[in-house]
Amino acid sequence: MQQARAITLGGQPLAGGRLPAICAPLVARTRAALITEAQAVAAKRPDLLEWRVDFFAALTDPAEVLAAASALREAAAGVPILFTRRARREGGQPIALDEPQVLALYQAVAASGCVDLMDFEMSNAADDVARVRALTQRHGLPLVLSFHDFQRTPCAADLVARFAQARQLGADIAKVAVMPQSMGEVHALLGATLQASGELDIPVISMAMGGLGAVSRLCGGVFGSALTFAVGASASAPGQIAIEDVRAALSVLQRATAG
Amino acid sequence: MQQARAITLGGQPLAGGRLPAICAPLVARTRAALITEAQAVAAKRPDLLEWRVDFFAALTDPAEVLAAASALREAAAGVPILFTRRARREGGQPIALDEPQVLALYQAVAASGCVDLMDFEMSNAADDVARVRALTQRHGLPLVLSFHDFQRTPCAADLVARFAQARQLGADIAKVAVMPQSMGEVHALLGATLQASGELDIPVISMAMGGLGAVSRLCGGVFGSALTFAVGASASAPGQIAIEDVRAALSVLQRATAG
Repeated sequence: MQQARAITLGGQPLAGGRLPAICAPLVARTRAALITEAQAVAAKRPDLLEWRVDFFAALTDPAEVLAAASALREAAAGVPILFTRRARREGGQPIALDEPQVLALYQAVAASGCVDLMDFEMSNAADDVARVRALTQRHGLPLVLSFHDFQRTPCAADLVARFAQARQLGADIAKVAVMPQSMGEVHALLGATLQASGELDIPVISMAMGGLGAVSRLCGGVFGSALTFAVGASASAPGQIAIEDVRAALSVLQRATAG
Repeated sequence: MQQARAITLGGQPLAGGRLPAICAPLVARTRAALITEAQAVAAKRPDLLEWRVDFFAALTDPAEVLAAASALREAAAGVPILFTRRARREGGQPIALDEPQVLALYQAVAASGCVDLMDFEMSNAADDVARVRALTQRHGLPLVLSFHDFQRTPCAADLVARFAQARQLGADIAKVAVMPQSMGEVHALLGATLQASGELDIPVISMAMGGLGAVSRLCGGVFGSALTFAVGASASAPGQIAIEDVRAALSVLQRATAG
């Protein structure tokens, strides 16, 4: 069994290596709103910001996306940025881009130097996953390969297999998010996270969504999850908790675990 | 599967039915110290106080124990009291009483009306368990039958069997406390708690002790544990967290779970 790993950026572990680090999503629709949102959220000092670009209305205008990325970089005040177009079938917003256009967008944003990590779903076409893998490597950006099921929770063995699949596809970080229908499924997600974090040589991220799964957003770190998503200004998925609350609960848990 | 149950006293669920309720141990050695400790701890409004009488120096003097029980009742200011002589082999203090004397003590304290619940280890002689069961029933006191392993964590199936054994022996509440050597064992304890709370018709209490298990003291409730032990003035077992911290973390967790 490996020790559970923290996400590293430029050789430095996020949040000083504390598990989990805290990531706040940004879901603004316009450049002006994105700047306002990023400033407000960055002031709460999350360890990472996730720009959910599928919420961005001008997504079809590459110049506007790049201008927004540049403005975001400044508004983030040094908080690193995870760039994510969440696919519609995995809980994202409907967008007007086809997949070649999405790939071109990832290429342009990666080349801009305005983001620090990228997220792409494992369920995308294998060629597209390979292309995103190649371009993130070229630009030195850690790649999160992700799996989301907003309806149900696969069995524990399938969850472990999803983490392993991300690693096999070249992920720097493997992410699995599921919707539990019972506390037994939340328990299975935590167990799979523990197993995957012990078996894989990359950081893993997991969460059970919704109210039933909220406990996983607080205690996932002790079971090996390297990142938890918390609300800075607006939630991007069901069950996310306010960043202040997450920080308060993690502080208690981390002191107790160390004690 | 049953719904996980809250501990009830006189038909009223402890902590308004919130899982877990919070119990603070009292470990004073003298009557005067017990009163001081109880006043200080009761001021923090735990849902329950546990009088760990094995810490009480005058344990061999029944009149002094009864005087202390009476003074404790007043000092507790309405917070209900769980009476526990923790056996040495299950993590308690060495005491100068033999088992017939312990039984006589349980009898006298039960008859005093100064406590609300009693705890007795399942590992005691079957006849003694039956006697404590009979006397607590006679006095209308819910009985916690408990199992503690301060060295290791039995496998999940054995943990589930311990909860079931308590029920089979007539417990009103089943308690299992273990020492984990890995997060896998903490995960197993939570899973066994979830299963037992779903299968049994009585409340269950569980915790994984030490720093590794501290997460179970915060998130055990969502996996079915009806009670968590938290520090009012002094800890009675490794890994217990300050009551203010437990309350802060539970508040976040409970709002997130309901949200």
